[in-house]
Amino acid sequence: MPLARIDISNKAPATLVRIISEAVYKAMVEVGNVPVHDKFQVVTRHAPDEIIYPTEGYLGNQYTPELVVIQVTWVSGRTTETKKKFFQQIASEIHEKGGIRKEDVWISLVESGREDWSFENGEMQYGPK
Amino acid sequence: MPLARIDISNKAPATLVRIISEAVYKAMVEVGNVPVHDKFQVVTRHAPDEIIYPTEGYLGNQYTPELVVIQVTWVSGRTTETKKKFFQQIASEIHEKGGIRKEDVWISLVESGREDWSFENGEMQYGPK
Amino acid sequence: MPLARIDISNKAPATLVRIISEAVYKAMVEVGNVPVHDKFQVVTRHAPDEIIYPTEGYLGNQYTPELVVIQVTWVSGRTTETKKKFFQQIASEIHEKGGIRKEDVWISLVESGREDWSFENGEMQYGPK
Repeated sequence: MPLARIDISNKAPATLVRIISEAVYKAMVEVGNVPVHDKFQVVTRHAPDEIIYPTEGYLGNQYTPELVVIQVTWVSGRTTETKKKFFQQIASEIHEKGGIRKEDVWISLVESGREDWSFENGEMQYGPK
Repeated sequence: MPLARIDISNKAPATLVRIISEAVYKAMVEVGNVPVHDKFQVVTRHAPDEIIYPTEGYLGNQYTPELVVIQVTWVSGRTTETKKKFFQQIASEIHEKGGIRKEDVWISLVESGREDWSFENGEMQYGPK
Repeated sequence: MPLARIDISNKAPATLVRIISEAVYKAMVEVGNVPVHDKFQVVTRHAPDEIIYPTEGYLGNQYTPELVVIQVTWVSGRTTETKKKFFQQIASEIHEKGGIRKEDVWISLVESGREDWSFENGEMQYGPK
């Protein structure tokens, strides 16, 4: 049910974009209890001045222009523990498979209801019967 | 009050973008009880690898690169029945007027409060007096 | 903790984009009680037909192609009064420093929880211990 928005530098190679996409999807299925093949994502590539982070760093971390901003909208109800694992797996996968620093993986979650989705055909697939 | 984000292939003709925009706006007014002229939308055109859907399909449906991803943020309170009609009307209109398969219309809703909007002038037009 | 999405005309000069970015960040810190250096923003530049507003105007206001659409996702809990001041300061700053009409500043807020953010390293920095 989720929609993932991935915002990334326009200098990122297409292979990296695919790795990030797969990492987010895989964590959804393996950790977030999202159904297999529920993979809907929108990637937007950005000029250098369009992905803005604090040059002073934040919470002791320094960011680079490789910063990837991931925002996932999904149905509410997942536990804090699940969300923690979700964050960890995404950052680890992107780092291990894509070579991006884990410090450059930034994730935000937004929640909505089961009745807030139409996957096709104008139908509300997960709403009440 | 809503903001609609429309993400679409960069191969979609401008006329189709306009048809989708109008379909979303029309459904808001006719079904969603949104005031006339409350039409604020952001369209982003994407390269083929930027709109990601499951190539295996989902819930029995197959998607094509013409997939249109629509995400509407609006004020909470609409009923499930209203949302169902909203989804139906958007998919039908885009199909009938734009020639897009209804299977390629994907919609996500996000809710916020009446005090979460400023339409102009830095004012909170719909908040409590 | 917030993520700000700024959608703007591709004709806007880079200096204006920076002014808007700074105005949003400054209002977050000064009004919204956001920590210093918590500055994460995604800017997307758009063709003229991609930022859609009512040509008839809305609520007595007329918009121009310079319309800036700002959507902030942040943690819930801020008061209506704070949000009012937040809107006012952003519109005023963008007008005074960037020369944009205050009528062309459009803001939407979305709320999430403290456990919905990972700033780096796959960690949940603001979740419960």
